[in-house]
Amino acid sequence: MVAALDIGGTKIAGALVDAGGRILARARKPTPAGEDAETVLGAVGEVLDALASSPHRDAVEAVGIGSAGPVDAARGTVSPVNVPGWRDFPLVERVGSAVGGLPVTLVGDGVAMTAAEHWLGAARGHTDALGLVVSTGVGGGLVLGGRLHPGPTGNAGHIGHLSVDLDGDPCACGGRGCVERLAAGPHIARRALDGGWRPGPDGDASAAAVAGAAREGHPAAVAAFDRAARALAAGIAATAHLVEVDIAVIGGGVAGAGEILFGPLRRHLADYATLSFARGLTVVPAATGTDAGLLGAAAAARAAF
Amino acid sequence: MVAALDIGGTKIAGALVDAGGRILARARKPTPAGEDAETVLGAVGEVLDALASSPHRDAVEAVGIGSAGPVDAARGTVSPVNVPGWRDFPLVERVGSAVGGLPVTLVGDGVAMTAAEHWLGAARGHTDALGLVVSTGVGGGLVLGGRLHPGPTGNAGHIGHLSVDLDGDPCACGGRGCVERLAAGPHIARRALDGGWRPGPDGDASAAAVAGAAREGHPAAVAAFDRAARALAAGIAATAHLVEVDIAVIGGGVAGAGEILFGPLRRHLADYATLSFARGLTVVPAATGTDAGLLGAAAAARAAF
Repeated sequence: MVAALDIGGTKIAGALVDAGGRILARARKPTPAGEDAETVLGAVGEVLDALASSPHRDAVEAVGIGSAGPVDAARGTVSPVNVPGWRDFPLVERVGSAVGGLPVTLVGDGVAMTAAEHWLGAARGHTDALGLVVSTGVGGGLVLGGRLHPGPTGNAGHIGHLSVDLDGDPCACGGRGCVERLAAGPHIARRALDGGWRPGPDGDASAAAVAGAAREGHPAAVAAFDRAARALAAGIAATAHLVEVDIAVIGGGVAGAGEILFGPLRRHLADYATLSFARGLTVVPAATGTDAGLLGAAAAARAAF
Repeated sequence: MVAALDIGGTKIAGALVDAGGRILARARKPTPAGEDAETVLGAVGEVLDALASSPHRDAVEAVGIGSAGPVDAARGTVSPVNVPGWRDFPLVERVGSAVGGLPVTLVGDGVAMTAAEHWLGAARGHTDALGLVVSTGVGGGLVLGGRLHPGPTGNAGHIGHLSVDLDGDPCACGGRGCVERLAAGPHIARRALDGGWRPGPDGDASAAAVAGAAREGHPAAVAAFDRAARALAAGIAATAHLVEVDIAVIGGGVAGAGEILFGPLRRHLADYATLSFARGLTVVPAATGTDAGLLGAAAAARAAF
């Protein structure tokens, strides 16, 4: 049994997860994202306390944390972009104290999602896999040689900041032409607006609304998803050429666009995944749903044993 | 003791290599690259026979092969671009028969060079490293978690065919804007010629000649190396973001340009390796020299034990 924490900018979720991936207890608090470090930690503590009321608590052997990044698993610290009170915050040490010294494993949220998909989802049975979360940002994680590969600091698989357009638009990270700059939801919406698409009467200018317009054939909406798909294809192919993954599993809100994204993505992939060992690469939607973060945090803790 | 083979389009080199990386016997034959499969294999056999005359032959426990690619280590086959007689040629099985059933390990030449640099060269002591060979093509290899990571087919680290310019020029691989298309020697020379550089009286239009002109300040020559350096920087940064390498070691003829390449490469790297866990990344020249292929083949065989 493992206690899992999924820490994001809007909520802190916790669960007790058994060896079969069943969730036997749950707790959840809003993230007090604008507050100071100790107040945010207090919310984590409340989630842990709620889990401690479960009759399964005595079976817990380890804690897994998947956190919004950047994380530094080597130091046990987190600095989530959307939680300014936590900068190099020693989360592993503080959670470790709160749970009486049980081992604590920290990974980034993209790595956690990948761990969940490898354990229980669409990447199950694959020895080498890439997981992607395409949402307001683009993150990811890797399974290599049959095992989760978080890398020394828990950030490996961070496909969002591969530059696939070295002369391209500046990215918030300081780079240029990053996958995230072309494929994240807000950038899809911006590109559609630039191309002449306009939101409906409800004013919804999200990537989901663009996907709806693309389904109805709006050219600027179709083009915006095609561009995102091309960037994802180049990034996924780069990953296959670098580490020989044979499957890419895509979760996150933008993946909810379905064939509007996956159709052009699979077509473009044939243009970029050209080497013999990458031609069998497949791209599929994630299967673990909204519990991916919790299940992945549990999987990461299990992988660290 | 390991027998090592370094198989390329122009020569087949062999050596007996001890546990300290010393070469105790050598042999070498030209590759009969235009001949049929059995004739090419015959040259490999002659190299092995020459090594078998060494007094150290009885101490040999395994054979390592680094081959021009593509290779398929899972199947034990090679299809070197410049050796058309070998297509899906079962090199592992045939060499295994020739050496009386000793274990045979096959990797691509970029992976072999990386193994050599990790064992005895500039990547020694690094837990996570990228090796690159920048020459008439661009190849590479990875060390992850302290071990050579050849991937399922022996091709992992193939940085030459990461697309860093998704709308860019078509590459020979079928992709677009690959690192190789921007940074390989012939493409550096072509770009310099396109920019107005002209070879001297000796007619030498190689990347080495362009490097000489760049050292003297010829703008088109400087620009050609700058472009190659930018492409390599984007590819190396992508690798650091994906698998958290903290060093990139560059060998091959184009690396011989020295600071003409490494200077702009280090500057551009700061533009692309932006995430916290990639900022410590360093880029250095390879140290194992012309024996890199042999030493790397030996290292790969040792890693497979």
